[in-house]
Amino acid sequence: MKRLPLRHRLPRIAAIAALWIVAAAAQAQTDPLPSWNDGPAKRAIVAFVKDTTDKAGPKYVAPEARIAAFDQDGTTWVEQPNYGEAMFAFDQLAVELDKHPRLKYIEPFKTVMSGNQAAIAKLTNEDLLKIAAAITHSGMTVPQFQQNVKDWLASAKHPRFHRPYTELAYQPMLEAMQYLRANGFKTYIVTGGGQDFVREYAQQVYGVPPEQIVGSAADTTFGYDKDGKAVLTKTHKTLFVDDKAGKPLAIHLVIGARPIIAFGNSDGDQQMLEYTEAGDGPHLMLLVHHDDATREYAYGPASKVGTFSEAMHAEATKRGWTVISMKNDWNRIFSWE
Amino acid sequence: MKRLPLRHRLPRIAAIAALWIVAAAAQAQTDPLPSWNDGPAKRAIVAFVKDTTDKAGPKYVAPEARIAAFDQDGTTWVEQPNYGEAMFAFDQLAVELDKHPRLKYIEPFKTVMSGNQAAIAKLTNEDLLKIAAAITHSGMTVPQFQQNVKDWLASAKHPRFHRPYTELAYQPMLEAMQYLRANGFKTYIVTGGGQDFVREYAQQVYGVPPEQIVGSAADTTFGYDKDGKAVLTKTHKTLFVDDKAGKPLAIHLVIGARPIIAFGNSDGDQQMLEYTEAGDGPHLMLLVHHDDATREYAYGPASKVGTFSEAMHAEATKRGWTVISMKNDWNRIFSWE
Repeated sequence: MKRLPLRHRLPRIAAIAALWIVAAAAQAQTDPLPSWNDGPAKRAIVAFVKDTTDKAGPKYVAPEARIAAFDQDGTTWVEQPNYGEAMFAFDQLAVELDKHPRLKYIEPFKTVMSGNQAAIAKLTNEDLLKIAAAITHSGMTVPQFQQNVKDWLASAKHPRFHRPYTELAYQPMLEAMQYLRANGFKTYIVTGGGQDFVREYAQQVYGVPPEQIVGSAADTTFGYDKDGKAVLTKTHKTLFVDDKAGKPLAIHLVIGARPIIAFGNSDGDQQMLEYTEAGDGPHLMLLVHHDDATREYAYGPASKVGTFSEAMHAEATKRGWTVISMKNDWNRIFSWE
Repeated sequence: MKRLPLRHRLPRIAAIAALWIVAAAAQAQTDPLPSWNDGPAKRAIVAFVKDTTDKAGPKYVAPEARIAAFDQDGTTWVEQPNYGEAMFAFDQLAVELDKHPRLKYIEPFKTVMSGNQAAIAKLTNEDLLKIAAAITHSGMTVPQFQQNVKDWLASAKHPRFHRPYTELAYQPMLEAMQYLRANGFKTYIVTGGGQDFVREYAQQVYGVPPEQIVGSAADTTFGYDKDGKAVLTKTHKTLFVDDKAGKPLAIHLVIGARPIIAFGNSDGDQQMLEYTEAGDGPHLMLLVHHDDATREYAYGPASKVGTFSEAMHAEATKRGWTVISMKNDWNRIFSWE
């Protein structure tokens, strides 16, 4: 066939291109998880939602039982070089230590003030809780603490991405939350982080209201301010630590029902996933694997560092839990990319 | 005017009566609180709902902040001759004591087993918690406990009303809850009773799902059953007692936001009402006064017995809290009347 000169072919090429763009746009509109590449993780989520919402199907779950639990640090937002809340605590600590200078010579505060990132990275969860509870929160009224968090979120920037922490949520996870909610699921954050911290931004960042944040909690005391108005004040005393076996306990305490889908990224989420798996009806357990040093960070079973151990990875594989590869399953990590 | 004989007047009387019935039915349909008599309590609730949902008005409250807190025992259902949960615990105790016969000689179990209602009525909250935690719940898996509650609810009858406890909710309060929900409020039970107990019937009785039950809570331990499935087991250890100053603490812990309307009936609700009152926006505080020995029970400031003290009544009056008279404000107490 004789080929037409380019100038005659152009309208046809343009028409095809236009059709292709329209088709791609339609595809994007109907795909609830556009930042997820087609693959086992995306397919598992979509199949689970279709199955549990299909009234005629054998895996149908009534809306009130559609409970989705998301770990936060490393699952729905960046947790490197440290938890957002730890970064907040460090910044608050620098301000507060002027009022308690003797603490500069006591661990874990000494390490924090040294600025030695390697040593800071090795602080235990207990150390971090000590910092959070003892220095920045204890003796502070709840409204004052809430204001401090708000102020910090408005000014602090992540050391690598140079963005506010609230912009470091993973776009694919935001889509998964939105997709689940659009299908009648109630989305909960179930985090080792402090409830009062996460509640200050979870609605804005994740669309999750305060009552759907399950986190570690310190006790509060009830009293009255100078005007005689009732006020709560934060104390040192830990009520519960929402990590490892503490996660199912906190889920039972605050939600009173078992999740049917749960997302985690570390050994700290194992019991929550086991608890989800032990439910009578359909359930889906997923773990984010940080295997993308270029776009985010690499830690976990592939790199053999961090809190997602090889043993946990082997267990997940054995049990058929879905491992999400950030590198392969996510075509976009942040909304601003 | 010459009066017509009755047989001629009848059609006209019938027509007027029919109109009156239609008007009354229309009234009943539009009245969201038909079991409430017109009076200050009903007017306060209706005005509050109208004000907080009027977008153009100065007292508008966004839907996410429309949080309503209801104490349970004595506020939304009968608490005489004892809390429903205590009745459950006593019944369970009789069964369980065969397994631990030596406890029959130790207080408070000795008193309970004596059957002396006057002595039983004097048991402190701490005694009741001991009974609940130590005997009936500790060492029991959560699903087993839930089954026990279900079984008890299906068989137990109230000693005076000879009805299942789940039929002893106050109809006016059920209407208030429904009315609030229809206006975008989220209704919470905030009870000194155990979360795990109340959650078993709250959806059915009040239309309140498990995650909106804030109650006293014992710790649980995480483990595995014989099939290796994750399971939670109840323990002795009290996490928090949701009474008096414990109520605002539990509200903050579980809800993370302040109620704008709160219903109570005793000194145990004072701090919850103060916490509600301390909010920046509109708020309404209400207390049920049990002053109707004929239809229910009389205790509280008028009869000078019970847990709603004269001091609390004076404080409520001073602060402008609304006191609901069961006798005068409610034309019906139970749905089956």
